[in-house]
Amino acid sequence: MNDDSDTDESRIADLIVGNHILANQGVLDGFGHVSVRSVTNPRHFYMARSRAPGLVNRDDIMEFDERSEPVDQRGRKMYGERYIHGEILAARPDVQSVVHSHSPDVLPFTVTKAPFQALIHMAAFLGSTPAPVFDIRDVLGDDNKMLVTTNQTGAALAKVLGTRSVALMRGHGMAVAAADVKFAVLRAIYTQRNARVEALALGMGEPVFLNAYEVDRIDPVDRPWEEWTDQVARASDRSL
Amino acid sequence: MNDDSDTDESRIADLIVGNHILANQGVLDGFGHVSVRSVTNPRHFYMARSRAPGLVNRDDIMEFDERSEPVDQRGRKMYGERYIHGEILAARPDVQSVVHSHSPDVLPFTVTKAPFQALIHMAAFLGSTPAPVFDIRDVLGDDNKMLVTTNQTGAALAKVLGTRSVALMRGHGMAVAAADVKFAVLRAIYTQRNARVEALALGMGEPVFLNAYEVDRIDPVDRPWEEWTDQVARASDRSL
Amino acid sequence: MNDDSDTDESRIADLIVGNHILANQGVLDGFGHVSVRSVTNPRHFYMARSRAPGLVNRDDIMEFDERSEPVDQRGRKMYGERYIHGEILAARPDVQSVVHSHSPDVLPFTVTKAPFQALIHMAAFLGSTPAPVFDIRDVLGDDNKMLVTTNQTGAALAKVLGTRSVALMRGHGMAVAAADVKFAVLRAIYTQRNARVEALALGMGEPVFLNAYEVDRIDPVDRPWEEWTDQVARASDRSL
Amino acid sequence: MNDDSDTDESRIADLIVGNHILANQGVLDGFGHVSVRSVTNPRHFYMARSRAPGLVNRDDIMEFDERSEPVDQRGRKMYGERYIHGEILAARPDVQSVVHSHSPDVLPFTVTKAPFQALIHMAAFLGSTPAPVFDIRDVLGDDNKMLVTTNQTGAALAKVLGTRSVALMRGHGMAVAAADVKFAVLRAIYTQRNARVEALALGMGEPVFLNAYEVDRIDPVDRPWEEWTDQVARASDRSL
Repeated sequence: MNDDSDTDESRIADLIVGNHILANQGVLDGFGHVSVRSVTNPRHFYMARSRAPGLVNRDDIMEFDERSEPVDQRGRKMYGERYIHGEILAARPDVQSVVHSHSPDVLPFTVTKAPFQALIHMAAFLGSTPAPVFDIRDVLGDDNKMLVTTNQTGAALAKVLGTRSVALMRGHGMAVAAADVKFAVLRAIYTQRNARVEALALGMGEPVFLNAYEVDRIDPVDRPWEEWTDQVARASDRSL
Repeated sequence: MNDDSDTDESRIADLIVGNHILANQGVLDGFGHVSVRSVTNPRHFYMARSRAPGLVNRDDIMEFDERSEPVDQRGRKMYGERYIHGEILAARPDVQSVVHSHSPDVLPFTVTKAPFQALIHMAAFLGSTPAPVFDIRDVLGDDNKMLVTTNQTGAALAKVLGTRSVALMRGHGMAVAAADVKFAVLRAIYTQRNARVEALALGMGEPVFLNAYEVDRIDPVDRPWEEWTDQVARASDRSL
Repeated sequence: MNDDSDTDESRIADLIVGNHILANQGVLDGFGHVSVRSVTNPRHFYMARSRAPGLVNRDDIMEFDERSEPVDQRGRKMYGERYIHGEILAARPDVQSVVHSHSPDVLPFTVTKAPFQALIHMAAFLGSTPAPVFDIRDVLGDDNKMLVTTNQTGAALAKVLGTRSVALMRGHGMAVAAADVKFAVLRAIYTQRNARVEALALGMGEPVFLNAYEVDRIDPVDRPWEEWTDQVARASDRSL
Repeated sequence: MNDDSDTDESRIADLIVGNHILANQGVLDGFGHVSVRSVTNPRHFYMARSRAPGLVNRDDIMEFDERSEPVDQRGRKMYGERYIHGEILAARPDVQSVVHSHSPDVLPFTVTKAPFQALIHMAAFLGSTPAPVFDIRDVLGDDNKMLVTTNQTGAALAKVLGTRSVALMRGHGMAVAAADVKFAVLRAIYTQRNARVEALALGMGEPVFLNAYEVDRIDPVDRPWEEWTDQVARASDRSL
């Protein structure tokens, strides 16, 4: 990734398109967010100010430090849950981009004991054992606000994620980690599709999940990125 | 809310956009409606004449009194079920806006004994005990027309609602109450999403609902309002 | 209906818009059809030539006689299943318009023993006992082509329909009858919605259906027609 | 098919529109593909270079030989799974076009023992016995990459397909075969719809499938092709 074409600006450009794609695909509603690590200062990361992902543009992007605090806030309102991103990026040097989403298809797996794991080959990154589930009650007890708004709870979530690509969050959503924005977007979308297929399959009998060999296969190529970008460009043109 | 910028006209502007958003999000079909209390005369409220919510504009807005009767009808056709709004607003001084919807995802919970309550954090306002279900048979007996078209049945619905945010209506839909139009719209949309998630979760096992502490957390911010407004503006531009 | 403004041309205008609305709402795919009885010759009816409903325009409309044969074919290809319309219109003087659809939400009820009846008030016309199911095997035996392409099978379907508004067709779809095109369209759409709600409700427990009094209430007003017309007009504008 | 109007260029024109239709209908995501046999050299076939189907145009079409190798690659990236197409076309002289898709509605049937067969008349081509399921573990053992990227695995899939129209692929998707591009597209779409109906029906009881006589009926006409083409043309216009 650290070639000449991989700059903070190129990462921010992907970050903006990634926000739009995830909103267009229904993975993000008005409340999720996407982040990317800085190349020039890998302890820092970029993310939008508090704004619906579908509307994010270059002026909305802010820089955050290793404590998830803003480098130069200038009065801008921030996502309360930016600690999800800061703590996962701190714990996982291999991760360059994080998505936090309330995907409606994934949510049922966060509140039941149904094991959520790779059922379709495009979601091999989910692994051949159930995705870990973060329950904020395990950190703060029953009297909590359901939100990851501190370094402490962000770090606890990062610990549950461990070396995985996806952690579920009870009654809340998921956190997705990947080696760049394109694959974080791709993983978030295919996590949602795996959930849709698995929900249907569970109603039909005992599903055959991918085995440990199959999930070790390489990541899928980023072929859909061009089409998804085209779709958000068309949607934007229509508003002119 | 009662600051200088909170006027009847500002509330009506939100009411019109709220109608369009709820139609665009599939919460309202051609038959639901939204209302807002008047600031200048808090016993009165505003609501569209009998027209599909997606088409409502400023000229369609009528004023209704505390009996849900029109202040100045001028021959306009009215929603037969305006008593839902008038009676809830009369019973609940804390409520400024009411949504009545036939949300298809919520309807299954109105006709079965499955408990409908907060399963996802964005729907914390649903509470940690099952939403009350209004069955018009309890008021009018078996020989009824399924519709809340009188002050009597409206008051009975308001009584079932009590101090809650959402009441289900058997075989019919729901009534949603909030402190302003934006939160009424937000709650109607997230009630629908909670329903979708809960329907799937019930098929997978025993879901873990939010507990009494978690549902007491503050209401979510109105961040999606800007994007939803943008979406209905785009849809409208496309028709030019 | 037989006032001055109810002419063959006004009915044909509604028929064309009704085709577009049902395609836009996903009730008709490329294969269903809609018909309307002639005012000037009530034994005859109008329907499109064999063309996908979403594309039907004035030039596609043909007149058919009481045997479902064309009055003036001029080489145009016809729907093979026009006998569904001709035989229902012949058997039911109270019916002015018929819809035949492969609605994907309704289809599961045609192949299982789950009773399909009014569960939501907007679908009161479905009645308080299960909708009748036409199985072509009962007419032609096991060796059949699944299609209603003769007066004999059309008449058998009309007999199964009896005095009801909707008959299901095993593994095939449904036939919907109403007093004019607007209500046939409305009923087809709300039949589909009742199916969606009932499928979800059946997974949650024993649903409470509308009772015999409730289904006797008057038909809903045609309020959504204006919005649905507006939606197909917008979709059409977008193609210019 | 081998009339004067059936040329390689006419087949390629259908192939391009077919790609767009299947993307627009949600049968293909960024990863599936469609192929068509060459008329002039029936051992060869045409298919896009590695690109999302929704974006494929004339310049992307490449020619492949009987080993699924490119006739004139010119550095273009190719679909790794082109062997699905080459081997089915080699084994089945009656087949002129193949679709490979990850249809999300079909996937649950690939990982469970629920029998997938014709339940609705538009999907009669599925047959009256369960569709065969190809599991790559049967060819390569547990240590496999889930993908059909060799002549060997392509031939094994073609063998599982046998004389059928559709073979499921465990945890991966399906392969659809037909006598031309239009019918391959039609079959792929109605396979998806049969899956949606069957998933719902299985939750309601024992479904009545089409019997052996019914599935022998002739293929449906290609009536929807005109409308689907119109829809992708509109979508394309909107981007101008």
